[in-house]
Amino acid sequence: MNFEISDKMKIVLEMINEFVDKELIPLEHEYLNTEFRDLLPILHEKRKMVKKMELWGPNHPVELGGMGLSMVDHGLVSEALGRTPTGHYVFGCQAPDAGNIEILHLHGTEEQKHKYLDPLAAGDIRSCFGMTEVDMPGSNPVMIETTAVKDGSDYIINGHKWYTSGADGSQFCIVMAVTDPEAPLHLQASMIIVPTDNPGFNLVRNIPVMGHSGSDYASHGEVMLQSCRVPQSNLLGKEGMGFVLAQDRLGPGRIHHCMRWLGICGRAFELMCKRANYRKISPDGKTLASKQIVQEWVAESAAEIQAARLMTLYAAWRIDTVGAKEARDDVSMIKYVVANTMQKVVDRALQLHGGLGMTDDTILAYFFRHERAARIYDGADEVHKSSLAKRMLRKYE
Amino acid sequence: MNFEISDKMKIVLEMINEFVDKELIPLEHEYLNTEFRDLLPILHEKRKMVKKMELWGPNHPVELGGMGLSMVDHGLVSEALGRTPTGHYVFGCQAPDAGNIEILHLHGTEEQKHKYLDPLAAGDIRSCFGMTEVDMPGSNPVMIETTAVKDGSDYIINGHKWYTSGADGSQFCIVMAVTDPEAPLHLQASMIIVPTDNPGFNLVRNIPVMGHSGSDYASHGEVMLQSCRVPQSNLLGKEGMGFVLAQDRLGPGRIHHCMRWLGICGRAFELMCKRANYRKISPDGKTLASKQIVQEWVAESAAEIQAARLMTLYAAWRIDTVGAKEARDDVSMIKYVVANTMQKVVDRALQLHGGLGMTDDTILAYFFRHERAARIYDGADEVHKSSLAKRMLRKYE
Amino acid sequence: MNFEISDKMKIVLEMINEFVDKELIPLEHEYLNTEFRDLLPILHEKRKMVKKMELWGPNHPVELGGMGLSMVDHGLVSEALGRTPTGHYVFGCQAPDAGNIEILHLHGTEEQKHKYLDPLAAGDIRSCFGMTEVDMPGSNPVMIETTAVKDGSDYIINGHKWYTSGADGSQFCIVMAVTDPEAPLHLQASMIIVPTDNPGFNLVRNIPVMGHSGSDYASHGEVMLQSCRVPQSNLLGKEGMGFVLAQDRLGPGRIHHCMRWLGICGRAFELMCKRANYRKISPDGKTLASKQIVQEWVAESAAEIQAARLMTLYAAWRIDTVGAKEARDDVSMIKYVVANTMQKVVDRALQLHGGLGMTDDTILAYFFRHERAARIYDGADEVHKSSLAKRMLRKYE
Amino acid sequence: MNFEISDKMKIVLEMINEFVDKELIPLEHEYLNTEFRDLLPILHEKRKMVKKMELWGPNHPVELGGMGLSMVDHGLVSEALGRTPTGHYVFGCQAPDAGNIEILHLHGTEEQKHKYLDPLAAGDIRSCFGMTEVDMPGSNPVMIETTAVKDGSDYIINGHKWYTSGADGSQFCIVMAVTDPEAPLHLQASMIIVPTDNPGFNLVRNIPVMGHSGSDYASHGEVMLQSCRVPQSNLLGKEGMGFVLAQDRLGPGRIHHCMRWLGICGRAFELMCKRANYRKISPDGKTLASKQIVQEWVAESAAEIQAARLMTLYAAWRIDTVGAKEARDDVSMIKYVVANTMQKVVDRALQLHGGLGMTDDTILAYFFRHERAARIYDGADEVHKSSLAKRMLRKYE
Repeated sequence: MNFEISDKMKIVLEMINEFVDKELIPLEHEYLNTEFRDLLPILHEKRKMVKKMELWGPNHPVELGGMGLSMVDHGLVSEALGRTPTGHYVFGCQAPDAGNIEILHLHGTEEQKHKYLDPLAAGDIRSCFGMTEVDMPGSNPVMIETTAVKDGSDYIINGHKWYTSGADGSQFCIVMAVTDPEAPLHLQASMIIVPTDNPGFNLVRNIPVMGHSGSDYASHGEVMLQSCRVPQSNLLGKEGMGFVLAQDRLGPGRIHHCMRWLGICGRAFELMCKRANYRKISPDGKTLASKQIVQEWVAESAAEIQAARLMTLYAAWRIDTVGAKEARDDVSMIKYVVANTMQKVVDRALQLHGGLGMTDDTILAYFFRHERAARIYDGADEVHKSSLAKRMLRKYE
Repeated sequence: MNFEISDKMKIVLEMINEFVDKELIPLEHEYLNTEFRDLLPILHEKRKMVKKMELWGPNHPVELGGMGLSMVDHGLVSEALGRTPTGHYVFGCQAPDAGNIEILHLHGTEEQKHKYLDPLAAGDIRSCFGMTEVDMPGSNPVMIETTAVKDGSDYIINGHKWYTSGADGSQFCIVMAVTDPEAPLHLQASMIIVPTDNPGFNLVRNIPVMGHSGSDYASHGEVMLQSCRVPQSNLLGKEGMGFVLAQDRLGPGRIHHCMRWLGICGRAFELMCKRANYRKISPDGKTLASKQIVQEWVAESAAEIQAARLMTLYAAWRIDTVGAKEARDDVSMIKYVVANTMQKVVDRALQLHGGLGMTDDTILAYFFRHERAARIYDGADEVHKSSLAKRMLRKYE
Repeated sequence: MNFEISDKMKIVLEMINEFVDKELIPLEHEYLNTEFRDLLPILHEKRKMVKKMELWGPNHPVELGGMGLSMVDHGLVSEALGRTPTGHYVFGCQAPDAGNIEILHLHGTEEQKHKYLDPLAAGDIRSCFGMTEVDMPGSNPVMIETTAVKDGSDYIINGHKWYTSGADGSQFCIVMAVTDPEAPLHLQASMIIVPTDNPGFNLVRNIPVMGHSGSDYASHGEVMLQSCRVPQSNLLGKEGMGFVLAQDRLGPGRIHHCMRWLGICGRAFELMCKRANYRKISPDGKTLASKQIVQEWVAESAAEIQAARLMTLYAAWRIDTVGAKEARDDVSMIKYVVANTMQKVVDRALQLHGGLGMTDDTILAYFFRHERAARIYDGADEVHKSSLAKRMLRKYE
Repeated sequence: MNFEISDKMKIVLEMINEFVDKELIPLEHEYLNTEFRDLLPILHEKRKMVKKMELWGPNHPVELGGMGLSMVDHGLVSEALGRTPTGHYVFGCQAPDAGNIEILHLHGTEEQKHKYLDPLAAGDIRSCFGMTEVDMPGSNPVMIETTAVKDGSDYIINGHKWYTSGADGSQFCIVMAVTDPEAPLHLQASMIIVPTDNPGFNLVRNIPVMGHSGSDYASHGEVMLQSCRVPQSNLLGKEGMGFVLAQDRLGPGRIHHCMRWLGICGRAFELMCKRANYRKISPDGKTLASKQIVQEWVAESAAEIQAARLMTLYAAWRIDTVGAKEARDDVSMIKYVVANTMQKVVDRALQLHGGLGMTDDTILAYFFRHERAARIYDGADEVHKSSLAKRMLRKYE
């Protein structure tokens, strides 16, 4: 057993942390007060700097211009980037593009790779992922209503998706649709690439989430697929393999999220400690740091972050060594543990800031409202807990 | 011991609940997607309806055109109104005006009453309350930096306030300022009425809170008082009595908040139960209501709301029967109990709504982000707990 | 709404509290270090004092020599008695005798009343209640395996009961047994009075609970009913009405328990506060009471006790005014709320006592281990929550 | 980063787990129903088996006949042994002997080693550790009242200790006493070896803890040191170094405890899962495992145990690689995290067992009541949290 990080990674992390501190955290004020769309020029400048430092696409395969990091090492990178909302975007490893790059890399045809993967991995275009449906529980893959019916050499797709994150401004969407309603439940659906300028692909609205509809990458689309015709060559992987690919995609994707959330935890913890030291509570100069309740929050948060961090690294190590399927329980666990840890730590940091914590003068209120989603997407807490527990209980039968 | 509500109040509550359901809840979509300022015309129409029904100003003295309800009865009304964000405004009992009306009624001069109280109680103007200061802990009344220095027959006020809620669009502000820095700590400050069109009263900005700066009543101002000159006849109550009046104001004010929060709890609970019954989770028609975790949330929420409600009514009854000072412990308790109950219940309701809960298609995301402030304003949880515990511990010495 | 206690009850409570403080709390050391059986002589002396004060049987009907208090008033008494483990026993209102008295009073024949009820109400004998079965979930009344088969004018009973509390030393047991396995599920069982000296009634052991098997009233029996023959005249109420009577018995019984637990909460709270004031933590004389975490515990405990108390009184008032059936939800709620509040408050009090809290030099360690059962008996938390929630959710369909 | 366990340790752990399952867990029934003293013969037989398997003293230096395991590896062993109450005793690594062996090994004179260390490490005698004092907070080392005054070549010791665990049956006690009240606070006390047959060493009583006074190793002594005269050659280490040695002893000692607690967690988890699978809740054969709340408990427990385990292994790795002082924060953290995790997991397992969980028919009720002490000894939760937080907050100044 050895918890040491490699020397190379220590250097990489130092570079990234410095970059985040100097180049990205100062953008937060604008991020909170401007449309994301209007930030694109400056973010693309930052992306150029990242590419120059050879830190672009930390988790992407080397042949796609990425760093090809292991899950553990990318986890550490993701933590560093997660400290500020633009981190992943600027380093080219933002969801859902990162997952789409992985699927296209593993399952795309040459033509698909040329047309979609290359510009995506280069950061020249963006993409989205159309799985979640209005009024269908995302957690139950059987309950998907979007259909893709063959017509000549095309598919005709009809369906109603939402939380198609970043649809606004994307060049294409990977859509999950039922291609064979007669097949066994887990083999009914397929993934199909749909260009967003297809006349049958309609972005109804950017859903207002926690008070903002957002724009471009920072948005969540509601999409109507209406007699949307695409060639069958746009099928990704084999027909009926939609859920299998989705599962492949979700395991690592959850680790990425968890590590990003750990970055948020770390940032909130830092803000909490600094504020505790700064904030005077009596004329004699005593600060909040002298209060035992504050100390309790610091100690609880430190321990919870430590726990969440070790569990996430362990799950990443398991994926690296035994594969995503074997590591399933480890990944389920961190999904709810880290999401809840983040909510608790951010809540405490906000509380410690008092009225200031409610404002957008710090990043905390943003974390508080937007990252509330962490306990919901990619499987709600309750869904992960039940499915994990059922697997575990079986071992004791 | 008798928990019965009077027949009169049963009718009043039925009328109010019906009004809230039919007239106000349908406004929520606009409330969430429009500036408050743009809602004023329609809200003022609703106010006319309320006045016609003789339900205006439920807690205001009868001689001011209000209903003169006891604290218990107003608590029940406040719960009914709290179910939707515009309830209190439309019934003329919104903070901070309600508190300002009470102070002016009890301590204002005839001139002040004529000029400020009468139009305020009638709902013709709005007011704000300038107590909280940037970087000064609201909980420690000794740490106030705004000063009011006598000059001829005037005061010259200098200071930096924030969270002057509703300053935008107010006609006057009741400002807390140090009038005698040599006096014993609790007798240093006074309340002074400052018209907002005074050239020394500068609204720097509406603070961006949880992603929105808001406008008019739905805003939190940052205010610079710069050589702000007002006649000494604008002093409210006696000089040096600022903290005493503030205390008088806070006790009942906290009950109002608590009862409003109970309204929010009730609304969130209702949405949670309805959604649980509606949301299918499997093709055979089973709903979320069949899940034991959901039942746990329902049962826990029901019990917590019941507890918070009885404690609040008890505290109100204590204020009605033995006065705000004697009821101090009861009020401290509900401040943190009800605020935390609300946070828990809203959080569960949001979680049960899944992705929908994060959107502004329901009121829950709004409650989640904005009512987070409940654990902070009017004394943070930790402050109330410490001061309550110290008083209690003394009884066992 | 009126939270006032009657003047008469104020006097009664004062008398009881004084008696508990002077006569019963001093017995705790012996109670913790001796077999209950050996305490009987001194406890019976105390009972005589109680009878002389005319406080015997606070909840029993006046015609049985009790005080005939309402549920609310008996709740307050029960709280006072609950402060020490022998309180209810000494006042003649201990479980399960109190419940058995109630059933016999309402449903017993003249003969049964004469033979069993009168000496029981007088405290001359004790009784037990045989419902729970080994390996059968107490929460599911359908799953009862004990049978009573008619044979001539007798029943022959066979079955395996446990948690037959106080069987050791009892004169009779009210046994729940299936009399008609063909009847609808809730009408299969009946209650039958079985004298414990019946050769077919065998007390296998006093179950070791939390380290002690106990004796006499302070014990939990495991009982084998082996071809146990009793006359059919020992049937209590009508045949098949066993569950109905059991439900009647449980509602009020749960209130009694809850109020007793509140007494335990109050006692633990008192010990916690006294210890906090007494315990020095630094050479300059500072005590634990100065620590903010301790203050947090005090404040949290005070609020939770207040909540649990008001909810229990409310449920009692509902039973008094609308009956046990209508008050079902209120009773379910307090069952899990008060039990959990007690566990939390006792846990904090124990923690505050440090090493001393683990010893039997205070009553806290006893409360900690034995009252853990509160979340289990008379329906586990989870059972009450689910059934309450299902009823509530139906209202929103 | 590498979470792999060495092949050698895999074999060791397999052997130990098998031994615990076959030889020690079957002793639990007797352990719970007999005095520890009466178990000594059988336990000593088991010890012989352990020695034969060459698994004796896993953490003791090889030169003392132990296995000389690293902290990480002993941690894993300790987890396996912790699954049953006699594990550590039978393998010769029970507290406080393990710590005493370590101190004597590092700081004892040749004479002391010969006389005390050798038979102790061989398991021929037992020892105790006299640090905690009645009414003095264990957490504040300045507040120690026992004194050792020089008189000729002797010390004369006077003081009142308690929680001198295992004093009953010990051959000697390492007593912490103030040797120089004028020295700086942390240099006032020394450790002195006191044979328990010294006439000035009086075991007043085995303190009744959670209902039992226990005996021999399974007891907690209250000890009066009354003009207790021992030669100065019994000083352990240098004079005034008492606290330094105590600190050295506590770091690793806490890891041992934490790993033992993890063993308890694992055992409780196993019992919980097995019971959930076994216990029928309806006539159609459904078991508790089908209930979502049970699944929640399983999932929460699994995650909490995983977190606690990784944190403990990490802290052990830190001690192995950078030393106990540098690893101080890591050790503080696990002290409260693991203790609380254990309490939660045991509580859930007990609840799932219903009435059975309260009995001594399983080991759970024993864990529930006795291991409650974990949050108290070796520094209460609150003490660790405050001191950890203060150190952490300083980094952000």
